[in-house]
Amino acid sequence: MTSTATEPAVLAQPRGFASDNYAGAHPEVLAAVAAANSGHATAYGEDGWTARLQDVVRGHFGEQATAFPVFNGTGANVLSLQALLPRWGAVVCATTAHINVDENGAPERVGGMKLLAVPTPDGKLTPELIDREAWGWGDEHRAQPLAVSITQTTELGTCYTPEEVRAIADHVHARGMRLHLDGARLSNAAAHLGAPLRAFTTDAGVDVLSLGGTKNGMLFGEAVVWLGEDDPGLQYLRKMDMQLASKMRFLSAQLIALYEGDLWLRSAGHANRMAQRLREGLEGLDAVTLTQPTQSNGVFAVLPDGAADRVRESFRFYDWDQETGEVRLMCSWDTTEEDIDGLVGAVKAAVAG
Amino acid sequence: MTSTATEPAVLAQPRGFASDNYAGAHPEVLAAVAAANSGHATAYGEDGWTARLQDVVRGHFGEQATAFPVFNGTGANVLSLQALLPRWGAVVCATTAHINVDENGAPERVGGMKLLAVPTPDGKLTPELIDREAWGWGDEHRAQPLAVSITQTTELGTCYTPEEVRAIADHVHARGMRLHLDGARLSNAAAHLGAPLRAFTTDAGVDVLSLGGTKNGMLFGEAVVWLGEDDPGLQYLRKMDMQLASKMRFLSAQLIALYEGDLWLRSAGHANRMAQRLREGLEGLDAVTLTQPTQSNGVFAVLPDGAADRVRESFRFYDWDQETGEVRLMCSWDTTEEDIDGLVGAVKAAVAG
Amino acid sequence: MTSTATEPAVLAQPRGFASDNYAGAHPEVLAAVAAANSGHATAYGEDGWTARLQDVVRGHFGEQATAFPVFNGTGANVLSLQALLPRWGAVVCATTAHINVDENGAPERVGGMKLLAVPTPDGKLTPELIDREAWGWGDEHRAQPLAVSITQTTELGTCYTPEEVRAIADHVHARGMRLHLDGARLSNAAAHLGAPLRAFTTDAGVDVLSLGGTKNGMLFGEAVVWLGEDDPGLQYLRKMDMQLASKMRFLSAQLIALYEGDLWLRSAGHANRMAQRLREGLEGLDAVTLTQPTQSNGVFAVLPDGAADRVRESFRFYDWDQETGEVRLMCSWDTTEEDIDGLVGAVKAAVAG
Amino acid sequence: MTSTATEPAVLAQPRGFASDNYAGAHPEVLAAVAAANSGHATAYGEDGWTARLQDVVRGHFGEQATAFPVFNGTGANVLSLQALLPRWGAVVCATTAHINVDENGAPERVGGMKLLAVPTPDGKLTPELIDREAWGWGDEHRAQPLAVSITQTTELGTCYTPEEVRAIADHVHARGMRLHLDGARLSNAAAHLGAPLRAFTTDAGVDVLSLGGTKNGMLFGEAVVWLGEDDPGLQYLRKMDMQLASKMRFLSAQLIALYEGDLWLRSAGHANRMAQRLREGLEGLDAVTLTQPTQSNGVFAVLPDGAADRVRESFRFYDWDQETGEVRLMCSWDTTEEDIDGLVGAVKAAVAG
Repeated sequence: MTSTATEPAVLAQPRGFASDNYAGAHPEVLAAVAAANSGHATAYGEDGWTARLQDVVRGHFGEQATAFPVFNGTGANVLSLQALLPRWGAVVCATTAHINVDENGAPERVGGMKLLAVPTPDGKLTPELIDREAWGWGDEHRAQPLAVSITQTTELGTCYTPEEVRAIADHVHARGMRLHLDGARLSNAAAHLGAPLRAFTTDAGVDVLSLGGTKNGMLFGEAVVWLGEDDPGLQYLRKMDMQLASKMRFLSAQLIALYEGDLWLRSAGHANRMAQRLREGLEGLDAVTLTQPTQSNGVFAVLPDGAADRVRESFRFYDWDQETGEVRLMCSWDTTEEDIDGLVGAVKAAVAG
Repeated sequence: MTSTATEPAVLAQPRGFASDNYAGAHPEVLAAVAAANSGHATAYGEDGWTARLQDVVRGHFGEQATAFPVFNGTGANVLSLQALLPRWGAVVCATTAHINVDENGAPERVGGMKLLAVPTPDGKLTPELIDREAWGWGDEHRAQPLAVSITQTTELGTCYTPEEVRAIADHVHARGMRLHLDGARLSNAAAHLGAPLRAFTTDAGVDVLSLGGTKNGMLFGEAVVWLGEDDPGLQYLRKMDMQLASKMRFLSAQLIALYEGDLWLRSAGHANRMAQRLREGLEGLDAVTLTQPTQSNGVFAVLPDGAADRVRESFRFYDWDQETGEVRLMCSWDTTEEDIDGLVGAVKAAVAG
Repeated sequence: MTSTATEPAVLAQPRGFASDNYAGAHPEVLAAVAAANSGHATAYGEDGWTARLQDVVRGHFGEQATAFPVFNGTGANVLSLQALLPRWGAVVCATTAHINVDENGAPERVGGMKLLAVPTPDGKLTPELIDREAWGWGDEHRAQPLAVSITQTTELGTCYTPEEVRAIADHVHARGMRLHLDGARLSNAAAHLGAPLRAFTTDAGVDVLSLGGTKNGMLFGEAVVWLGEDDPGLQYLRKMDMQLASKMRFLSAQLIALYEGDLWLRSAGHANRMAQRLREGLEGLDAVTLTQPTQSNGVFAVLPDGAADRVRESFRFYDWDQETGEVRLMCSWDTTEEDIDGLVGAVKAAVAG
Repeated sequence: MTSTATEPAVLAQPRGFASDNYAGAHPEVLAAVAAANSGHATAYGEDGWTARLQDVVRGHFGEQATAFPVFNGTGANVLSLQALLPRWGAVVCATTAHINVDENGAPERVGGMKLLAVPTPDGKLTPELIDREAWGWGDEHRAQPLAVSITQTTELGTCYTPEEVRAIADHVHARGMRLHLDGARLSNAAAHLGAPLRAFTTDAGVDVLSLGGTKNGMLFGEAVVWLGEDDPGLQYLRKMDMQLASKMRFLSAQLIALYEGDLWLRSAGHANRMAQRLREGLEGLDAVTLTQPTQSNGVFAVLPDGAADRVRESFRFYDWDQETGEVRLMCSWDTTEEDIDGLVGAVKAAVAG
């Protein structure tokens, strides 16, 4: 019998900038899992860790907040939207939204909803952009736009201000719709804005949010956080959508480790700073065009022909738009200054070459 | 900031017999997770651990086997059955099957299938029992029975012999149907039968199985193991059904820890032996009736009026049938001889009292 | 160009007892369709016929009733049940219910619901039978039983009294569930009971019903009749479930022709009387066992070995239970006394032979 | 008892140009229904009319064609696309496609598919436009584009040439996708092109089509016409999707009446000519801008501010784009030259006024 524990070096890969999902788990998260592995605990959430998580979540999002730990972000998003929508509901979102392009139709297939996607320049919706698809209520031929989903920070690394979220929420509520926020990178927004999490969620009128975990240093796991007074049946939706963990303490303990103290902010702030350092390193290069503001842990840039492939010999990252040569460079909680400087150096060499 | 790591004793609960899900993770599993937490790895399964898991699974189930790690058992079951069925398919199963009674309709709602449930005395299907619902092919009014699902070991703690599985598989295949095996407790069957896993799966004609993990000492996680030559699109089904883990290495590393060596067998064998010890302890009591053979890690028994509630003052367990007074007593990988002797003593006292 | 109009005799088939769906449309229904074919009318239900249908339906079922014409009975049933249920709901029904055995899983696949089927001796549920599956509220692992569906008259030709429906409705409502009635043969019940339609629907506590049309002499078409004060979104459900007719006047005109006057009662009463005549003809035969009371337009009987096949040389009908030799003999609005006497004669000859 | 037959004038509405669904049924269609109403016929399609319809359809579309009559166009489209797609499939279509904007998400909710919609200038896809969304095969995060759906004639009244369909089909097939054609107005295309139906369907590489009926003079009803050699299970899909008519002869008889002779072509040709007459009437008006070529039975035009509302005092029609003032003017099989001249006169008066 050979344990994998003896040879991690064989399996781990060169560090890179492909995704914040390529990083592992933060040591404090892992320690919390180990600590939670003590004796018996009632399955399916009736355990002490999940109860304690509710306190943690209420501390961040207010007394009415309830957390439903789930396995992954797609699960969190689909559950959140089902909680907002009747069977005939549709969701207005940006064309770049994760729910629209990265979930293989789970919102449609599992959630039974239609997405009404609106092109945006920067991944951010506005009341005006929402209105392109928010119409036709009462017309049974049209999937009824009854929810709006925004991503904070967006898939393009941009960040809504609290005022922008508030304006969207007011606009949405005035039309009888409700607002979901995909917060896979919610902590990065808080770090960028220098604001508490509730400033651009609860206090800005968000109705339900997907609270990120995996991308910010967990092994796995996110949570749906319901901010309303009513009970939309998330308990049942979670089970029927196959997102109910039996040994839920191991989900809740991770979320506690992340959100009870300041690990969420330390980690996200670090990733943001690394992205900022990367931006600064690239800004000086005439051959490189930065395509989005850097308000999170990702940098979007257009490299000259062939340069991206030369950089890729040393560092992994993804093309964002093959036609324009735009690439996405993601930093994570474990990105180091050496990583950044190495990447900047490789880009310099590539654009020089 | 207070870490949960400092006070697990507050949160853990008295040991009991409610479910094998109440136990924590085996230390070797946790060590494997920690070992896998080394640097960067490509997300979504293109990592070294998941590749290595394929070798492990092929070692158990043969060269054609492919493993798709997923989050939980409901996910594994629904994916497996979708892989077997066209959109109009139905599944013959026992009324006691987990898919029928414990998954809040996920097979119907997410999987889009109909279950055709057959009552059984002991949780086991037979060719004759299957035939009660396996008919009506070509009649568009009837959901087409194109798959059969059996559970090994069953929800009643009973175990199919390899010959029984073979007889079912032959019967099923002769009628153009395919066979799924819910193996949430597959290791317990191997321990009971003294046979390798493939003896009652691959070699007995099973087409796809849900390979258990959580109930046998993992933090979370199961795998769909596809045993056919064809490709039923499980890659896509897993994503659209919200069962694709981004940091999949942490799923695969656990499955490797469990199945690469003999941890699966040690743990399941131990749990079975504890159940056997419990059975022997109860067999001597005239007031207690054992309702099922003990071929796994669970004991089913009818206690006299009021006795169950007195025992429950010391140990948690579930009623199985409130009308008859039948209770289910589950052992797990971490159940000790002291736990068993304590429970037997409590039952003795309760039936005496 | 050859019109089918010139040779119907080639295409029509021998008269028989296979199903009330084998009969054509009543001449008064066809005349109403022809009369509605006059000029232009707004599509999708904003026409004069559909408005008038609302008056007709209110006349039968009370001021709060609203009719939603749909294409077929499966559509009516699935819409009705979706209107009663949240996404996690389940439906208690008899194992013999049309929704359970004759709709290829449409309630599960399109409606997203789970059926909890209970065996019955005669197709009729009772509070006691309902309780076999009506439990487990609040347990997220169990599909939540939040609706009960009964069929009036049942698939076995039996009829609930108004008191029996009332008892079920009270029982159901006391447990927080709601009651659907599949009334594909609702008129036959009224004819049998000598009671107005509302006596065993609105006045007995039914929440929503499928109002039959096709089996009682329409070309096609049924209606969901919502009896509650609230609006469950049936307008949207009908469209998204592909049951919205564009030229709805032709559906509504048929329903008006059937239900505005007494055609519904004349036709159903006639079919019931033909079944009664058939029963009386068979009752005298020692070799024939009648298995259900005849409270509708169908007779269920066990014929001796081989007899059914000899009768089938002259008349079409279906086996109900091949093992016991039970057959189902259905009468329709156009069954004649000669048809009945011919069938009775054929049975006599067959059992003699 | 009062029959609606006595007062149609009360219920019918002023003639207009709102939709080809506002017209009634063609007298030959109604006569065929009456002729089919003769005695008994086996339900669910095993009748002489449905068999004869197969001959008719093979005459138009070739020997391998099979027709599945269904209730409405949404049903035909969803069934067609389900027949083409695995559970993880997506459909590339124009943003203006009926399936995208007029079916309340039925393709997503009932069909379980995702639509990948592409903006077009004229409602017509091209290989280049298809390629905007036809990519990402093998990437499980992306709903897999495995079908393309085009509408002939389009929702904007434009018509694909046989060569254009062929180019799309070749492009689509070369990428492993399949081609659906929504032919709600297929006859209008044939009339415009002066080509047989198969020229731009079977012969051009279409895999499955929705064959229109209601908009061209039927009471209700369309058909899925499967053009492939394989059997994608449409028999089962039709039942589970609630599109199986019990008295199917009344669907098939209408389709025979329309397609056996030349009624389909006479009616569509007439509607096209009326649209052409309307176009010619409007072309002379400086204040009116025609926004699309008129290749079918609809005319799209921008009227000056306020003019549309003045015309609407006499004739019903729909706004197409409220921002630009574009209106849609639809002709049908029963539109008369007087109707057209009246409308043109009203427009003239309105733009003068």
